[in-house]
Amino acid sequence: MNFKTKLSAIQKKNNSLLCIGLDQPLFAFNKAIIDATFDLVCAYKPNMAFYEAAGINGLRQLETTIIYIKEKYPDIPIILDAKRSDIGNTARMYAKMAFEYFNVDVLTVNPYLGIDSLEPYLEYKDKFIFVLAKTSNPGSRDFQDLKINGKPLFWKVAEKLKTLDKREQIGVVVGATYPGELRIIRKLLPNYIFLIPGIGSQGGDLEKTIKYGLDKEKSGVVINVSRSVIYAKDIRKEAQKIRMQINFYVK
Amino acid sequence: MNFKTKLSAIQKKNNSLLCIGLDQPLFAFNKAIIDATFDLVCAYKPNMAFYEAAGINGLRQLETTIIYIKEKYPDIPIILDAKRSDIGNTARMYAKMAFEYFNVDVLTVNPYLGIDSLEPYLEYKDKFIFVLAKTSNPGSRDFQDLKINGKPLFWKVAEKLKTLDKREQIGVVVGATYPGELRIIRKLLPNYIFLIPGIGSQGGDLEKTIKYGLDKEKSGVVINVSRSVIYAKDIRKEAQKIRMQINFYVK
Repeated sequence: MNFKTKLSAIQKKNNSLLCIGLDQPLFAFNKAIIDATFDLVCAYKPNMAFYEAAGINGLRQLETTIIYIKEKYPDIPIILDAKRSDIGNTARMYAKMAFEYFNVDVLTVNPYLGIDSLEPYLEYKDKFIFVLAKTSNPGSRDFQDLKINGKPLFWKVAEKLKTLDKREQIGVVVGATYPGELRIIRKLLPNYIFLIPGIGSQGGDLEKTIKYGLDKEKSGVVINVSRSVIYAKDIRKEAQKIRMQINFYVK
Repeated sequence: MNFKTKLSAIQKKNNSLLCIGLDQPLFAFNKAIIDATFDLVCAYKPNMAFYEAAGINGLRQLETTIIYIKEKYPDIPIILDAKRSDIGNTARMYAKMAFEYFNVDVLTVNPYLGIDSLEPYLEYKDKFIFVLAKTSNPGSRDFQDLKINGKPLFWKVAEKLKTLDKREQIGVVVGATYPGELRIIRKLLPNYIFLIPGIGSQGGDLEKTIKYGLDKEKSGVVINVSRSVIYAKDIRKEAQKIRMQINFYVK
């Protein structure tokens, strides 16, 4: 099943736009989070950096975590957050890693190398990429906001993605810490799915994120929370709370 | 020993600016290349994508290759080509992967997320990063060449790196396929080390690369070749030939 269909189904089933970031390279830790939240989320998002930092054993924890989700909760999509980038023939290798070896639904990618560096991922017809547009960190201003004929670089990235015309396979990453930019990008890409980090520890404004991020069907967003859920005293309660807050603003 | 010192020593010892890309996730294959070329190169550059595509076993081949070089040829620096990018606290994990787990000398990184996304790497005082400026692929035109007040984005990236003022720990990646851009970036960053891919299979012009890439000491470049050496019938002979061609233009 392709990612968009899978995402839409689980968002309805779990009444949730919440994605939980799995950023601890320990299967047992992840399993506890997953078992406590499987009916509250629309996706899980392991960030590969945390697993790589722990070396080959860390990557084994990632593999076990992915297999566990796929076997026990096959209707929950997995977003591998790896922000990969390389030229065509090498990008093909990253696509193979994500879509064949780990066989996840989605990979996050960095657009700096241009459109030909994104094309190899699209050859996997059921798979999906989230392309970084405007990231949640302060430094995102350094290059992403630079003006080209009056338009910021992230705007040019969003515009260029439309020329690829694979709406079914491409979404964008936009940080909740920049609601104004979120609004601009939603206008540019009315039907694209947005992966939105920056709520929680990073202090993004949830109300504005929902107001400006939603598409016309009051959907089209995946709101990621990592630290504030996975290190909570009561993980399930925290996830329930955030899901409820999101749904409050959606209505 | 820090990377710049190590690089300078081996470039003199081996009379070489040639770096060989190790892009096959097989230790035995890499070992054969390394043993045939250790006195002809100034660095080895495994591209992590090829290893990741082969999963955990592939990464084990990478680890074994790195350990082999460090033990048998400790004076040859290793550039891990992974083009990583993430926000600060996560970039720290990629730094840990490269500089603690694999303990290589250099990591390649992607600047799209801004300066704060590059800072964590610099905390490792003996380590080094090559930041993508102008990549060798046709798609590098899509965003890297966009003009900001008349200056292309790659120019802004190069300029911004100077504000970090860590000349000892930062270099740039510039593709040999764009000699004009190479010339511009050399003028902007007269004392930085350039990692230059794009010679060989990608068709970059070696003469112009040397002419425009060298710094005032007739050094400051690491010229990478992957496919045309590692798949050559006689690997040593091919490496000797390219080293000689490079040195011919240097003189």
